[in-house]
Amino acid sequence: MRTIDAFNHFFPKRYYDALLDSPAGQKDIGKRVRGIPALSDIDLRLKIVEQFPDYTQVLSHGLPPIERLFGPDKAVEMAKVANDGLAEVVARHPKHFVGWSAMLPMNVPDAAAKEAERVLKNGANAIQLGTNANGEPLDEKKFWPIYEIIAKSGRPILLHPARTREMPDYPTEKVSKYEICSVLGWPYETGVTLARFVFSGIIDRNPGLTIVAHHLGGVIPYLEGRVGHSFDQLGARTSDEDYGAVLRGLKKRPYDYFKDFYGDTAVEGAKAATVCGIDFFTPERVVFASDCPFDKEKGPGYIRDTIKVLNSLGLSNADMEKICFRNAQKLFGIA
Amino acid sequence: MRTIDAFNHFFPKRYYDALLDSPAGQKDIGKRVRGIPALSDIDLRLKIVEQFPDYTQVLSHGLPPIERLFGPDKAVEMAKVANDGLAEVVARHPKHFVGWSAMLPMNVPDAAAKEAERVLKNGANAIQLGTNANGEPLDEKKFWPIYEIIAKSGRPILLHPARTREMPDYPTEKVSKYEICSVLGWPYETGVTLARFVFSGIIDRNPGLTIVAHHLGGVIPYLEGRVGHSFDQLGARTSDEDYGAVLRGLKKRPYDYFKDFYGDTAVEGAKAATVCGIDFFTPERVVFASDCPFDKEKGPGYIRDTIKVLNSLGLSNADMEKICFRNAQKLFGIA
Repeated sequence: MRTIDAFNHFFPKRYYDALLDSPAGQKDIGKRVRGIPALSDIDLRLKIVEQFPDYTQVLSHGLPPIERLFGPDKAVEMAKVANDGLAEVVARHPKHFVGWSAMLPMNVPDAAAKEAERVLKNGANAIQLGTNANGEPLDEKKFWPIYEIIAKSGRPILLHPARTREMPDYPTEKVSKYEICSVLGWPYETGVTLARFVFSGIIDRNPGLTIVAHHLGGVIPYLEGRVGHSFDQLGARTSDEDYGAVLRGLKKRPYDYFKDFYGDTAVEGAKAATVCGIDFFTPERVVFASDCPFDKEKGPGYIRDTIKVLNSLGLSNADMEKICFRNAQKLFGIA
Repeated sequence: MRTIDAFNHFFPKRYYDALLDSPAGQKDIGKRVRGIPALSDIDLRLKIVEQFPDYTQVLSHGLPPIERLFGPDKAVEMAKVANDGLAEVVARHPKHFVGWSAMLPMNVPDAAAKEAERVLKNGANAIQLGTNANGEPLDEKKFWPIYEIIAKSGRPILLHPARTREMPDYPTEKVSKYEICSVLGWPYETGVTLARFVFSGIIDRNPGLTIVAHHLGGVIPYLEGRVGHSFDQLGARTSDEDYGAVLRGLKKRPYDYFKDFYGDTAVEGAKAATVCGIDFFTPERVVFASDCPFDKEKGPGYIRDTIKVLNSLGLSNADMEKICFRNAQKLFGIA
């Protein structure tokens, strides 16, 4: 089965070098990315891709988002370096890579909107956003022009969790322990951000906007009951904000917005979660993704596990084709 | 099929009156609990129970936890009032209620340990804990004597999410929006607290301790892949704490501890989530629970939906019996 891997990570060389030179790159983040060679070593990466028949990748940048690494003075320029670098890698290896997603300097919202326009004209197949911009929720009005541009392009947002200490719905990582914030908190924050897209009205204002939520929707499919019943009762628990008015201002039931998002299959090969997530999003709105190279083997592990799990589900051939490549073709505009 | 509902909520009268008189009770919380009569009206509650054949409840207190409502000066006495009140309700209606779970004044840890001893001697079938104690994580050492007492009793902890502004792994609710913290954050925090029980060593020190995680384990079953693979790599993302040592200090793989927790079926009747949760915990470690009376009908809705979902899964009769009553009989010591 042809397989397009919609969400996995790679650093183009010039950007990678700048990352390692940045203050954050000289601490934890540098340690982490150096430990996973297939994040930046193109030869190694090509070999990983070649292990799987009829398998190609749409490359996304590695994390963290650019605004975590560079201040407003550098982020705008570095986003260009990163995006043009990723475009070049893909252009040079068309048999391995069939597309790429750009990132934006979210700490300079005007420039982020311009960069979105630039890369979408230059062939970016998606825009990757962290679930917050240095702790600022994505539903703040200053980011709204960005969503308008992306919606008009017809290309999707790939929503990736981003760690932070300041995000209002998110753990204060400074005193969090045992990496709980990244292991459990990231999928939680993915759900948080989807909810903010819905309730802020961004989705209603941009009906063409497509959002692919990494890790099969974060926590949303498992919390389907709460997403339905509890959000239907929005306002019942609160008296200082009029959330009843927010609810009445939406064009449809909250639950129905969540059902319109896309999820990818990057759940480290967990079978029951894959079944639950496909049930929630339906095969019309799930794309194959591996999160390569973040497995223990630092490359092929999650690709292999995810293919194996999908093959074990007894899905119809038509549904498998949608999940493995047809949905990705449509979303990314890939032949 | 006989059904024991392991987790649902009721306020005994004297405690309910004190709650409404408390500062928090005069604001949001009072508004909320007044709006759901079956939380405190015994006649109404009995009628709800009677709608379902061969169905009984193990009563738990309503939320929030006592330490959110009363300062250290009052919480100790009010916990006794609440617990003795709930015991009395159950004793008076043995055909409807087959057990009860106590709560502890967690803002006075010594007194909480004593209250745990007292109620477990007096027939409490479980101890209900919020996932944090006024924002303090449950793995703080001052709470450890409580777990020792509960573990020795053989009775389970019923772990219920508790909202807070201060919990280190938890959203800062003050600036959170759209009730995201309760709708999505509660199940997240359930996962956080289970992780803290594991990594702090509390489970290793108290091998007899049984924890039933409300809402079918919060987010844990859906995040099975991360709970496995990401916690196996604990320490890889961090350099300021030696989490590698934490990992090596555990008696088994982190994943295996999570598999030993119990979950209840209170997921508002969501079928795919129910399947995913039972797959994770196995039918040996799932108990029926409805979260009555928090459905839109304010009473029977989730009971009916949860029975219906379980009946639709095609489980063997033996597995259905375990989930519907046999596991609860063992955990709670019910004939």
